[in-house]
Amino acid sequence: MVIGVTETLATHPLTDTHRETIEAAKTALAQRSYYSRYPESPSPRVYGETAPQDGEMAFEALQNHEFTALSDQPSTGRSVGSEVSPYGPQLGVRYPKLDLDAGMAAALAAMPAWRDAGAETRAAVCVEIIEQVNRRSHEMAHAVMHTSGQPFVMSFQAGGPHAQDRALEAVVAALVEQERVPAGVLWEKPGRKAPIRMQKDYRIVPRGVALVIGCNTFPTWNSYPGLFASLATGNPVVVKPHPKAVLPLALTVAIARDVLESAGFDRALAQLAAEDDGTGLAKTLALRPEVAIIDYTGGPGFGRWLETEAVAAGKLVYTEKAGLNSIVVDSTDDLKGMLGNLAFSFSLYSGQMCTAPQNVYVPSDGIRTDEGDLTFEEVGERIAGAISRFTGDDAKAVEILGATVNDDVRDRATDVPALAQRLGGEVLLDSRGVVHPSYPDAVVRTPALVAVDAGNEPAYTQECFGPVAFVIRTGSTDESLDLFRRTVREFGGMTAAVYSTDDTVLEQTREAAADAGVALSENLTGQVFVNQTAAFSDYHGTGANPAANAAYTDAAFVASRFRVVTSRRHV
Amino acid sequence: MVIGVTETLATHPLTDTHRETIEAAKTALAQRSYYSRYPESPSPRVYGETAPQDGEMAFEALQNHEFTALSDQPSTGRSVGSEVSPYGPQLGVRYPKLDLDAGMAAALAAMPAWRDAGAETRAAVCVEIIEQVNRRSHEMAHAVMHTSGQPFVMSFQAGGPHAQDRALEAVVAALVEQERVPAGVLWEKPGRKAPIRMQKDYRIVPRGVALVIGCNTFPTWNSYPGLFASLATGNPVVVKPHPKAVLPLALTVAIARDVLESAGFDRALAQLAAEDDGTGLAKTLALRPEVAIIDYTGGPGFGRWLETEAVAAGKLVYTEKAGLNSIVVDSTDDLKGMLGNLAFSFSLYSGQMCTAPQNVYVPSDGIRTDEGDLTFEEVGERIAGAISRFTGDDAKAVEILGATVNDDVRDRATDVPALAQRLGGEVLLDSRGVVHPSYPDAVVRTPALVAVDAGNEPAYTQECFGPVAFVIRTGSTDESLDLFRRTVREFGGMTAAVYSTDDTVLEQTREAAADAGVALSENLTGQVFVNQTAAFSDYHGTGANPAANAAYTDAAFVASRFRVVTSRRHV
Repeated sequence: MVIGVTETLATHPLTDTHRETIEAAKTALAQRSYYSRYPESPSPRVYGETAPQDGEMAFEALQNHEFTALSDQPSTGRSVGSEVSPYGPQLGVRYPKLDLDAGMAAALAAMPAWRDAGAETRAAVCVEIIEQVNRRSHEMAHAVMHTSGQPFVMSFQAGGPHAQDRALEAVVAALVEQERVPAGVLWEKPGRKAPIRMQKDYRIVPRGVALVIGCNTFPTWNSYPGLFASLATGNPVVVKPHPKAVLPLALTVAIARDVLESAGFDRALAQLAAEDDGTGLAKTLALRPEVAIIDYTGGPGFGRWLETEAVAAGKLVYTEKAGLNSIVVDSTDDLKGMLGNLAFSFSLYSGQMCTAPQNVYVPSDGIRTDEGDLTFEEVGERIAGAISRFTGDDAKAVEILGATVNDDVRDRATDVPALAQRLGGEVLLDSRGVVHPSYPDAVVRTPALVAVDAGNEPAYTQECFGPVAFVIRTGSTDESLDLFRRTVREFGGMTAAVYSTDDTVLEQTREAAADAGVALSENLTGQVFVNQTAAFSDYHGTGANPAANAAYTDAAFVASRFRVVTSRRHV
Repeated sequence: MVIGVTETLATHPLTDTHRETIEAAKTALAQRSYYSRYPESPSPRVYGETAPQDGEMAFEALQNHEFTALSDQPSTGRSVGSEVSPYGPQLGVRYPKLDLDAGMAAALAAMPAWRDAGAETRAAVCVEIIEQVNRRSHEMAHAVMHTSGQPFVMSFQAGGPHAQDRALEAVVAALVEQERVPAGVLWEKPGRKAPIRMQKDYRIVPRGVALVIGCNTFPTWNSYPGLFASLATGNPVVVKPHPKAVLPLALTVAIARDVLESAGFDRALAQLAAEDDGTGLAKTLALRPEVAIIDYTGGPGFGRWLETEAVAAGKLVYTEKAGLNSIVVDSTDDLKGMLGNLAFSFSLYSGQMCTAPQNVYVPSDGIRTDEGDLTFEEVGERIAGAISRFTGDDAKAVEILGATVNDDVRDRATDVPALAQRLGGEVLLDSRGVVHPSYPDAVVRTPALVAVDAGNEPAYTQECFGPVAFVIRTGSTDESLDLFRRTVREFGGMTAAVYSTDDTVLEQTREAAADAGVALSENLTGQVFVNQTAAFSDYHGTGANPAANAAYTDAAFVASRFRVVTSRRHV
């Protein structure tokens, strides 16, 4: 039975269940005020006494087995999977290989009922998926830790509740956008004798299959916004995880399928397309005619391919790639706070966040601080010292640094002097190998600092992903601002920060950030860090520079994922 | 003096002037209810006793002269212009040729102050531009008539007030979208001891220079949405008119520049880049690095180039191209009304609207009507007869048909028997040449009807722009619906209509329209026509099929034209 838009849709039971959550999230998103649905503390007091052990045991039970929770997907009969934890162990999880033709057909077949369910029901079902994902946050934390190399608490927070909050944000943003389209209107145009009256119905239709291409470092956090924005707007999703970080998204898709089925919809609305490393499945999927939307986080090479070839093939493409995250240091009235904050930002996950700072601009004649004037050299020394102290204790350091995620990162970090020489810079702080007390095979590296001259642009105008940052000697803060503005405009940037006690400099930096199209953090000296953004309040990315063509989550991120089809008739 | 977002912006006087208009338009847009700011009647009672003569004289004064109103644009020193009225006369207007380097530099230089003026001021200034354009609607009507070939009243309505309403709609849609981003928030995250408090400011930034590429048939109506959406979101616009339809956009840009200057902004926020025919300026402009947004209406060839090459170059591209506008005829309880309505839709501007119907699906065993059952042949005869009667009186017919706009259209219309033979169809009604009583050089053609079999898909699955439509013999209404769904999905369509007395068929047609992604008009028998959409209520296009990747005006049309840059700091 076809449900027409003019008929009243029955309220799905989940809409009552999640009404309060959705309303609270809507309010926060509209005001961009603080809101978090999912507690970020992994404490048993929050998630239940047995949650930590249960989560660990569940993760262990997955290892060295077929991932049977997805065995009902249309499969080629083969299985794939070659994940190795950055902490050492092989995961040994084998995933059924998706039969693409059958999978796409199943996705399209599932679409009309999902479309006709309406935005409110879709949002409620999506929230239920997120709630179920939240209950398995400890299991997810281990899966994220042993695919991304993030330290445990970060894996829990960023891979769990923070990702879930971003997912909820995307769902609510999508809902709000769809609700802006009225279901219908009685249109009356005044006429000579009588008005012309028409009933017009506005029907929200999805665009097609949505492909989500995950990354290695943030398999959930970076995939959830696109995944849930597409699903909430009526599009079936096919998730193509990074071959080295499949498990977190396999868990997510399996949960989604169960929730969808329980809610009366087709499991094929969420599918996982896992692959062995190096098979190029993302490209194949991106060009499938059924695929209409693509969300991607990852390296700039494939991102650029998507932005050229996939868009030329008519796909809507949202990318987050890479950029030059920049900090302008002009002056500070809290040197200690600044150094501590910077040391944390450089160290967290060994600089393997797309938001980690890389380029620190410092004037050659130094800066003013509450501890007196510092020369350029002293600024470098003090930052280096802060990092050394912060990462000095191996057992504590690994809980911040995590493990290096791949050989590219390790190569850059293990011979910083050679890197510095090649770039024409000077090592201010070498990266130190840290022995992980529990995982001896993990390659753990502390951040390195390399000083370069502002004139040596090639050295610092490419992304140096991982634990290497540059302290750039500029002629003045004016030159720092010029370089910041120009390099971010040209090469992109996900984040920017400034330290200054001078209101004029702060205002100039805001201008430069507006011109460069990058979000700015000012004088962070406490427990907020430049590499972290808060769901519902901070946009992640701006879409205004080459680092990313989209932002989590603005209206532009959701408004194009659906279309409106009108039918009109006289009444 | 830089105005920061944290400071209170002074209210621009125009915001008071246009507050009521903007509020009324906002309400209409949110409800999609009837609203029109600009009266569609050209009557002197509405626009003033001398308006018609004043407009005509103003138009006449422009002919055979340099277009001096734009002589302050940065120019190469040469002038361009080769417009010939489809009604016969050469216009002889010469436009200064824009110096692209200087023009782009001027546009970028004008951007920061326009950005910092804020969304409310920008909207008010844009409305003032539209108001000033409205006051010159009679002059504009002549300019549109003698570039597009539209008949006079249509030129006035579609080129004047209807286009102005669409412009206002775009301005208000852009304003609403920007107002959804709060200026700032005090963000408080609960902490162990004290909350973490941050002030976050959200600043709306434009993307860059917006290029508007106009078309020959609707120089204002199809250009205004993109032009005003881009301008209202902070982007300077460069308008590249069709070489054969420069004057309406030259007038518009000249008015915009004057208003911008009067309002305290830079005239360079609106510029005209006219060209002689065949110089390929659109391509050059589309690839300029300064250009970030492109709005295009026109043929599918260049549209497809923009959708591949320009998007690959990082431009945001909104297109409206061409498609197969379709009508499914199943049954009717008002045969006379249906025939009259169809005759008008085919005849208006000789089918040269992107929304004009082309493919009429009729079952081979005929249809039921209030005048008894009609065979397939009789349906064709009755439509043909209705068109013949409607266009039978030359003097009246020219006021509906207008003039053919170019040789392609003329070629198709002047030898319909040859066209039908080539396509394997049968002429049901030949096109008739109509002598225009006032313009003997105008080529005026009535619509032709060609019958083809449903199996002969190549005949009717390409756009046949102009006064030729196909009556397609299908096995049944089910087959009609299948063909409608499939051909519009594949080849696109701007409009669709159905005639049926059967609720099941109507519901099936709504489903087919949703699948095909095209707006549907049902049983139009009165004074609303399938080829007309109303601003604030009807979306023009859907973006859900290949005919257009955008719709006038949904959130997706405006939300990506700006970006948000945050700055945050502890308080």
